Amino acid sequence: MNIKDLVSRKAIEAKAGARDLLKARPGVKSDLLLKMAGALEAAAGKLMAENAKDVEAAKKKILSGALIDRLTLDEKRVKEMACGLREVAALPDPVGEITGVRQRPNGMSVGRMRVPIGVIGIIYESRPNVTADATALCLKSGNAVLLRGGSEAINSNRAIVEILRAEAKKAGINEGAISFIDIPDREAILEMVKLEGLVDVVIPRGGEGLIRTVTENSRIPVLKHYKGVCHIFVDRDADLIMAEELCINAKAQRPGTCNAMETMLVDEQIAEGFLPKVLAAMEKKGVAIKGDQRTRAIYPKADELSEDDYYKEYLDLILNVRVVAGIDEAMDHIAKYGSAHSDAIVTMNYDKAMRFLREVDSSAVLINASTRLNDGGQFGLGAEIGISTDKIHARGPMGLEELTCAKFVVLGSGQIRQ
Amino acid sequence: MNIKDLVSRKAIEAKAGARDLLKARPGVKSDLLLKMAGALEAAAGKLMAENAKDVEAAKKKILSGALIDRLTLDEKRVKEMACGLREVAALPDPVGEITGVRQRPNGMSVGRMRVPIGVIGIIYESRPNVTADATALCLKSGNAVLLRGGSEAINSNRAIVEILRAEAKKAGINEGAISFIDIPDREAILEMVKLEGLVDVVIPRGGEGLIRTVTENSRIPVLKHYKGVCHIFVDRDADLIMAEELCINAKAQRPGTCNAMETMLVDEQIAEGFLPKVLAAMEKKGVAIKGDQRTRAIYPKADELSEDDYYKEYLDLILNVRVVAGIDEAMDHIAKYGSAHSDAIVTMNYDKAMRFLREVDSSAVLINASTRLNDGGQFGLGAEIGISTDKIHARGPMGLEELTCAKFVVLGSGQIRQ
Repeated sequence: MNIKDLVSRKAIEAKAGARDLLKARPGVKSDLLLKMAGALEAAAGKLMAENAKDVEAAKKKILSGALIDRLTLDEKRVKEMACGLREVAALPDPVGEITGVRQRPNGMSVGRMRVPIGVIGIIYESRPNVTADATALCLKSGNAVLLRGGSEAINSNRAIVEILRAEAKKAGINEGAISFIDIPDREAILEMVKLEGLVDVVIPRGGEGLIRTVTENSRIPVLKHYKGVCHIFVDRDADLIMAEELCINAKAQRPGTCNAMETMLVDEQIAEGFLPKVLAAMEKKGVAIKGDQRTRAIYPKADELSEDDYYKEYLDLILNVRVVAGIDEAMDHIAKYGSAHSDAIVTMNYDKAMRFLREVDSSAVLINASTRLNDGGQFGLGAEIGISTDKIHARGPMGLEELTCAKFVVLGSGQIRQ
Repeated sequence: MNIKDLVSRKAIEAKAGARDLLKARPGVKSDLLLKMAGALEAAAGKLMAENAKDVEAAKKKILSGALIDRLTLDEKRVKEMACGLREVAALPDPVGEITGVRQRPNGMSVGRMRVPIGVIGIIYESRPNVTADATALCLKSGNAVLLRGGSEAINSNRAIVEILRAEAKKAGINEGAISFIDIPDREAILEMVKLEGLVDVVIPRGGEGLIRTVTENSRIPVLKHYKGVCHIFVDRDADLIMAEELCINAKAQRPGTCNAMETMLVDEQIAEGFLPKVLAAMEKKGVAIKGDQRTRAIYPKADELSEDDYYKEYLDLILNVRVVAGIDEAMDHIAKYGSAHSDAIVTMNYDKAMRFLREVDSSAVLINASTRLNDGGQFGLGAEIGISTDKIHARGPMGLEELTCAKFVVLGSGQIRQ
């Protein structure tokens, strides 16, 4: 069987699984997730043995240390996967919620019912824990999952999927609901994203290259974010002590994340007082500073900056600093160079806070809070399957609700169209 | 300038328009729509003259009568366009609504704010009224519109757009918010749907061919429905007088619409009593009946039916009839042959009504009501820009709210990530 046929066979199985899941009661789904958690823990030894094969192969290919770290499963990480499943099991079930039911003039009641999307394709890279995390969120929201993990984790993913499917089978859930494309070739991705009518949405999780490949080839809707070029604008009316704390947190607390700040925009009226102190503190945290001309006039130690730098997601301890004339220039900068991910203002001025909130078109807009807080857990969604910077369906962290959609329901008593 | 450059220049203008619209207050937008309505009425003579050129060209090309009818603008239709604008002006503004604000343990408040999508591409065929209708819905919801109408209506569309843009200019709204791709070549569509980053969503309105072309070539999310293969299942526990009325309404009230019934599914336990009466009544309405074997055993006048017929959207006075063993076979039929548009059950049995509501995965699921009622106006949305049978963002009729999305907003007081 060729790759195309293999991939579409898996998708057909997933679609059958999705249809069966429409009938599964909330208790059945959460019980299943708890059983899966136990089964993963019980199989920790086997999982680590399978994972060791992947790690060994990765070392032979001299892949980077960071990649090998992401790939590795130890006792603690297996435990974390199991905990993740239990957390999702405990979340409220989004499916079946009926909202906004109103009676129309002709007496029929019209509302919306939250329903699963159907088959969700997850395309990811080296982290094997995504296999369990994504399965949990998809199943809990009534969706079948079609997994396609990175080739470097193939043995680990295969072992995890085997355990999850065995539990589904025991619980009387169609195993197709957890389908895994066991083909390391990149062609499998290209075939998968063409399966309109079988796969309802694709969520790629990984580097920008993977996400571009998926988006450019997909005939299926894609929920994604390419990158996080996040900003904090420190307004002239900011509490400067707060501003310093927020900016340092946003840059340095975990610089490798998509919601870390890449560019700090500072109002010209406070730049002279604010910059030397905050930039010295940044440097103490190991942050390399790149400044525009006006920044370098105030803080000569800053390196020169090119316009290209404003587009960069460093994912590292590097910070762009730009002095702006005020909120309008700051918002223009964010609209031009930003990635619509997480952008914050620090200000005590009510009017400017409200303008920033309304006019900045990002997935999360924050007043007086660190961009690092844009996260499903921090926002109270429970768990997230990713962050979307798209403009339709979902913006920001995507939790269980974002894995559903709402159909119209009509409770009639014989109404016809006049 | 080549087509690609022309199209992307228009999209760039639209994007600038969208950014300006983010700042427009609700009153400014609704006043503008009212002014546009007046201006269209005042220019009725000019519009009809321009339209006459299109109609003449269409007649020369010997296009169908139905197409020429859709294309033609008379005094009444210009008036209807103006009324449409006034109705949209009167709807509540969806932008800026903040919902679900909750305080998190660290004291920051997190909620969602409804915001425009950005630039909405509308690709449509012969009806020139879509130019005004789509513009009204997009502007009211804070979006710029990038219009690409059918070549056969080019003079009419150009004239309408000119009037709408002139009013926008007078109101101080960036004219880019109403951008029109004045290129009849099909290549313009293919270029338009590749403008990721400039156009945020594409809504094709027209025949299945147009919609397939858009979907298969688009790198931008598409909101659409291909076709409406709608069903009514008449359960053994139905009120048969109600069932007859609903089925005749769903098939014959306006058979050329996407929410008309194409296949009637009848429970075997009542088929013998129900079919002869309802099918005779259908035939009186001019409906041609195609029946499966069991239907033809009861009603021999019915024509033979092939499995292929179950997939067809007749848009005509033709009806498939199938006798099924019960609700499960009916739902299997709908899942296999349906288009997830509008599907109804007629029953007085509570349990079966609830199962049908939950398990049928269509954009609108109706109990004891005609499928013809799946419509933005009937459902109370005010006006609709189309119906979506997609599984993300929106299902069913799309009104103003479906032309927006929700971003996260954080009202903080100095919170950082721990």
